[in-house]
Order: sequence, then structure tokens, then C-alpha cells
Amino acid sequence: MKILMIGAGGTIGKMVTPALKGHEVITVGRNTGDITADISLEVAVDNLFNRVSNIDAVICTAGDSVTDNLSKMNKDQFMVGIHQKLCLQINLVLSGMKYLKDNGSFTLISGKMGEFPVNGSSGKALVNGAINSFVMAAAQEMPRGIRLNVISPSKVSDIDENELIEAYVRCLETAINGEIIRVGYNKQ
Amino acid sequence: MKILMIGAGGTIGKMVTPALKGHEVITVGRNTGDITADISLEVAVDNLFNRVSNIDAVICTAGDSVTDNLSKMNKDQFMVGIHQKLCLQINLVLSGMKYLKDNGSFTLISGKMGEFPVNGSSGKALVNGAINSFVMAAAQEMPRGIRLNVISPSKVSDIDENELIEAYVRCLETAINGEIIRVGYNKQ
Repeated sequence: MKILMIGAGGTIGKMVTPALKGHEVITVGRNTGDITADISLEVAVDNLFNRVSNIDAVICTAGDSVTDNLSKMNKDQFMVGIHQKLCLQINLVLSGMKYLKDNGSFTLISGKMGEFPVNGSSGKALVNGAINSFVMAAAQEMPRGIRLNVISPSKVSDIDENELIEAYVRCLETAINGEIIRVGYNKQ
Repeated sequence: MKILMIGAGGTIGKMVTPALKGHEVITVGRNTGDITADISLEVAVDNLFNRVSNIDAVICTAGDSVTDNLSKMNKDQFMVGIHQKLCLQINLVLSGMKYLKDNGSFTLISGKMGEFPVNGSSGKALVNGAINSFVMAAAQEMPRGIRLNVISPSKVSDIDENELIEAYVRCLETAINGEIIRVGYNKQ
């Protein structure tokens, strides 16, 4: 499979990318990777798909949001997550769905705070909840057998690496569509 | 109770506002109401809370988003819901939490498409999911006993008016906090 791996240099990306070595993986990052691109910019997303053809799967493990107490959050801080994690992934799907091969797949990333928020997580929670709902909705309308799922990881210290890799493999290699796959939620 | 009712002229607002007649209700709308204000503008929200003091409760039933097939949605269309339904309600909470009376309450609005999306609802789904997660997160951090909940209605034709009013009364008059109250989900 030819896989575009966005955010390979991040924490989750570093855990997952080595496990994909049976595939042709093209890493994309803001500063590092086979291709460097700031995919928070719409034009960069279009360029990316114009440059790399015959993609079977897109995995996105990239996305920033602000963590702070609600009393210290203002609209601009909420907008960081909206632009850098939510819109970034929506653009990836809206643009990529035109280019991906038939029966390809998108695997996005959200996070546990969307469902089980703790103090200081409102900026993250909102974005993660939005991504989960977007995936459930948009998966129903993907063209040409393309599938769309999302991994929702807990905080890194609660993640079992094998469980995480298994989640990504399920998204790549099984027929699931529109699923939120929760990883590390039960760790105490 | 002194209640600020935002979106009183909308479909849900028209069903709920008459049921609040035992309270002092101040209606706010873009074009109609005791106060006319476009609360999608941050400055208008601040003005609103500066103008009306001693508010016990804010109910928001306002919010626009775009409904269309995914293949016809672009980023700008997703941004309509993000600005006009999501950011609008976040601003209302971020600003209002400084002004509301102790033990006051916010009741926001999301919608069934955030959890059970149908074709054409991706723009709605994303925003509703974001609002639900925001409420669960932010409710934990509200100051001075202020509560924050959200009503998630099904489509209007599936809503029983009494059930809807009961949901708003629960948000106003009981101790619930951080709850998503689903209305009309089970109607066939």
C-alpha cells in the first residue's frame, strides 16, 4: 500500500510509522519528512495531492490545540485547535477524497478529551468532539469505496504501543468505516 | 429568574420562550427581540452583558450551519457553522461567565446530527459534536456555582414540545451541570 503519513515526527507518528514498514510510506511533516509541507494551509494540501499520485491511504497524526484553564482561554486560543487540528484534517479529507485511489482510506486523529474531558482541556475537547462527529457524518458520503475513520488516543503515557498499532492496522486493512477507535481509555 | 433568551425568534426559541412566562425574560435576536444584537460578533456579546445586569440564566437557541452533500461542501461552508453556531456560543460562555449571577446557568444548543448524522449533515455534525464536548469540558471549570448544559434536539418535526420545555426547565431549575439533554431522538 502507498501510505501518506502526516505528522510522522510527532509522538503518535513516531510510534506508528515504524510498524508500517511493509508498505510504501511517504512521511509528511512541517519540518521533517520525505515531503515538508505545512498542511494547515489549504494550498499546501492541494499541492501535496498533486505531487504524490496513486495514494491508497492517508494517516494524519498531526494537530495542535491549546491546553489551559477555561478562565485563561480566549477565542483566539480556541481557534488554534480549530485551525491546526480540526480544519487541517477537514481540508485533508475534502481535498484528498478527489485524489485517493478507489477503496482507499483516511485515518484521522482526535483524542480522549472529546469524550472524557478533564480540567484545562476545553480547547482540546471541542476539537476532538468535532472531529469524531465529522468522521461519523462524512464517512457515509465518501466516494468510490473510500473509508474514513478516526483514532482517539488517550494521553501518551496511557497508550499501549501494540494496541495503538493494531488500531491503525484495523483502519488500513479492514472494511471499517465511520468508526471512532478508542485507544488507552481504560488505563488507570 | 432573570433570563436572557437568545434566538427567541427561531423555531426552538418560539417553542420555549412562552413557557418561561413565570420569569423575567429578555429576548435577544439579530432582527427582533427586546434587544437586537448580532451575537456572532464578540463586541456585541460584551455589550450585551454590560447592558443587562443581574442575569440568572442565559439560554441560546440560535446558530446557523450549512447543510449540503459532502461533495459540495468546501472549507468556507464548514466555517459558517464554526463561526455562527460554535464560536458564537463559546463567546457567550467566555464573556457571560464573568457577568452571570452566582449559581446562574447557561443552556446552549447542539443537535442530534452530532451523534447520529445523516447524509448532508457533515457541516452540522461537526459543530454539534464540538459544542457537546465543549460543554462537558467547560462545565467542570465554571466559576461561582454557574452551571453549563446543552440541549441536543432532533429535527423539529420529531420534537414533542412538552419534552423540549421540560428539558429547558431541568437546565434552569435543577442542579445538573455538564449534561447533554437529548430531545426527540427516539421518534420514528
